[in-house]
Amino acid sequence: MNSALEDLLAVLRFPSISTSSENAADVRNCAEWIAAKLTGMGLSAAIHQTVKHPVVVAKSKPQPGKPTVLIYGHYDVQPVDPLDQWQTPPFQPDIRDGRIFARGATDNKGQFMSHLCGVEQTLAEHGELPLNVIFLIEGEEEIGSPNLAPFLREHRSELACDIIAISDTGMVAPGVPTFTYGLRGIACLEVHVHGPTIDLHSGIFGGSVGNPNTMLAKLVAAVHDAHGRIQIPGFYNAVRDVHEWEKEAWTKLPGEAETLRLTGVPALWGEAGYSDLECRWARPTAEVNGIGGGYQGEGSKTVIPRSAFAKFSFRLVPDQDPDDIIKNVQTFFAKMAPDCVRVEIKPGHSGPPYSMDPHSVYGKAAQRALRATFDREPALIREGGSIPIVQSFNDILGSDTLLLGLALPDCQMHAPNENFTISNYEAGIRLNRRLLQELAM
Amino acid sequence: MNSALEDLLAVLRFPSISTSSENAADVRNCAEWIAAKLTGMGLSAAIHQTVKHPVVVAKSKPQPGKPTVLIYGHYDVQPVDPLDQWQTPPFQPDIRDGRIFARGATDNKGQFMSHLCGVEQTLAEHGELPLNVIFLIEGEEEIGSPNLAPFLREHRSELACDIIAISDTGMVAPGVPTFTYGLRGIACLEVHVHGPTIDLHSGIFGGSVGNPNTMLAKLVAAVHDAHGRIQIPGFYNAVRDVHEWEKEAWTKLPGEAETLRLTGVPALWGEAGYSDLECRWARPTAEVNGIGGGYQGEGSKTVIPRSAFAKFSFRLVPDQDPDDIIKNVQTFFAKMAPDCVRVEIKPGHSGPPYSMDPHSVYGKAAQRALRATFDREPALIREGGSIPIVQSFNDILGSDTLLLGLALPDCQMHAPNENFTISNYEAGIRLNRRLLQELAM
Repeated sequence: MNSALEDLLAVLRFPSISTSSENAADVRNCAEWIAAKLTGMGLSAAIHQTVKHPVVVAKSKPQPGKPTVLIYGHYDVQPVDPLDQWQTPPFQPDIRDGRIFARGATDNKGQFMSHLCGVEQTLAEHGELPLNVIFLIEGEEEIGSPNLAPFLREHRSELACDIIAISDTGMVAPGVPTFTYGLRGIACLEVHVHGPTIDLHSGIFGGSVGNPNTMLAKLVAAVHDAHGRIQIPGFYNAVRDVHEWEKEAWTKLPGEAETLRLTGVPALWGEAGYSDLECRWARPTAEVNGIGGGYQGEGSKTVIPRSAFAKFSFRLVPDQDPDDIIKNVQTFFAKMAPDCVRVEIKPGHSGPPYSMDPHSVYGKAAQRALRATFDREPALIREGGSIPIVQSFNDILGSDTLLLGLALPDCQMHAPNENFTISNYEAGIRLNRRLLQELAM
Repeated sequence: MNSALEDLLAVLRFPSISTSSENAADVRNCAEWIAAKLTGMGLSAAIHQTVKHPVVVAKSKPQPGKPTVLIYGHYDVQPVDPLDQWQTPPFQPDIRDGRIFARGATDNKGQFMSHLCGVEQTLAEHGELPLNVIFLIEGEEEIGSPNLAPFLREHRSELACDIIAISDTGMVAPGVPTFTYGLRGIACLEVHVHGPTIDLHSGIFGGSVGNPNTMLAKLVAAVHDAHGRIQIPGFYNAVRDVHEWEKEAWTKLPGEAETLRLTGVPALWGEAGYSDLECRWARPTAEVNGIGGGYQGEGSKTVIPRSAFAKFSFRLVPDQDPDDIIKNVQTFFAKMAPDCVRVEIKPGHSGPPYSMDPHSVYGKAAQRALRATFDREPALIREGGSIPIVQSFNDILGSDTLLLGLALPDCQMHAPNENFTISNYEAGIRLNRRLLQELAM
């Protein structure tokens, strides 16, 4: 375990923030470390440069006639702000109370490294693997994997596989093995409201100039009604109903009380008529991830700002199409835009929602590996987050994806003090070793 | 004129930003320069430290039996952001096309310095002044003059005067002398919406956690109806109607077309039933000077932020009371606040609206000085901005204030590339010299 932990700490030291152009060299260096590690394990590894950040691909020694599992992960991470809320620096991993604190600890370095170390230990013990393994570790997941689908198309035959395994999802509670068979999709866009050519004195011009902050607030406020229902025409058209067996199964999982505890909000919110888990896993959302306009500093500055923005992300469920959603949103805001300002919509990254049959052959094999590793019946869930590439795998490689999450509810993903428990890192390594066996049967 | 211009450039070089605690020493240094200048002119000048920034007071040699004019100005300035939009650095004054570009050029260093240089030239020419002059130049106007009213109370007898003169308002057009008899008041407050204890992953928790950005937008959006009318109960209760003679007089002034040209907005906005000038001068407003929450950087970061804020300023007209307005706003937001977040209101600085009789003895004297200086009939106007201290002068010293503005419509006050024309600086010096004569009669 010591060398596996040292390896994880080494990977966590790279500030591989994919959205920040300043960190491009760090991203590259992280890819090179991973490729060197895989090569050292005896796999044939290569770094493929894309338009932006590189993809690492490594293949075990071919064993014809045996099935092939492709293990996907991503070595890029989210930005770290607000930096002042971290107890220790995000790229100097710190171990406290059995947890490793660092940006990327759970999402996704800790999780893909457990697979990598599981393969390493299997090879060390048996000299060979029970099936063919391909690692595909990319550097653009946190910006929506813009270059991975083209990469998959280009390398389709090289990446041919029977099944895909990803650990980038959550466990419903510590110790409860969790098999995820559905993910929400995502569609991002920015709304920019442009008003006067310069920031104006709000005393001199206030009253006859539309304030971009106010006009933006009116657009944002119109997105939801008082019951949490999204008001964009056509938004719910393609939404599939939640199955009754899912509703039933989810009532046994930690729900509202746990969400209140984890988030610290005074009361939950959500679309009327749906439970906490249904709202988070099986219903679409519209979130403003960032809003800004005018004076941001200390004290007051009495201006009417020249512009204001809102960064939206919509989480989508089967069978919503991200392109359709973006069109609907554009139409909605364009119709609402008052004539005193100019409203600009900038579409961002997107990815479709995903679902698979949890009762398929490989689905059952994965559940056996989970059961054996954690000695407990796995929970069958969907998840609210998005891994857009999962649908691309399905479309391009024709394979389903097994989502074997190791993230704990309090891992602080995307937030300050992100962490991964050492016990889950160890369990992840054991899970990988068992998974290789179960999938080979 | 050369020495007057050099003096103005020297004052403009001090980055005397009163809202920024980093600039406290610059503010102090600026006060010391002004006091030294006034002492050099033969006035008895003193720097009075307040809790925050100092006040400069200077008095001419007492001439018993003659009236006393108190000339007020402020040497503090607004912040400079967005800095990248300045063509030349804000505290390195640059002369281009007959204009001096610098933060504070018009607001208010250029304007109070024209009075100071007018007094200097009168003394140089005649050896004495036709009346008693008190200069009161403060350093906290841009943060709402929190310490000036207490200072006036403490120094009431020392500052006793017959009339007050201030140049800190605008001219309706270049070359048109402008006498302002009314100002809007101001009431500032910040609304903070607190949600989860940390920024949350918007995929994992989105759907059952209220987003502070969205909840804030709903509060902001509720402030105005679709006709630009403020929806806060009681907000308009104390508002005095616009006089018919004012409505009539203002139709002759540059209006909508000029406002469109100056601001560059695609269309004007405003309270239904009122003209552009009525909306800006005689009707109250609610402006969001700054809004912010969540991710502000490049690209996307899919979070539900822990909090969001809006910085409001309300412009008030006679006889609205700032304290009443702040109470009404607090009640309005408290009632609207959804239970999924905690809404916090932080009241900021405030000041009452002001009006005087433009046909009083000193009002007419000031209009004669304006007429003589610009060789044209003065426009009688109100102004949309706030000089809260004007009402305090009235309350504490018992004197009216003559508002003799020299700011041009395109002077970019509070914005990048603030400027003051050299010709208006010269006119301001001549205006002061004539004003001293007219007030002495």
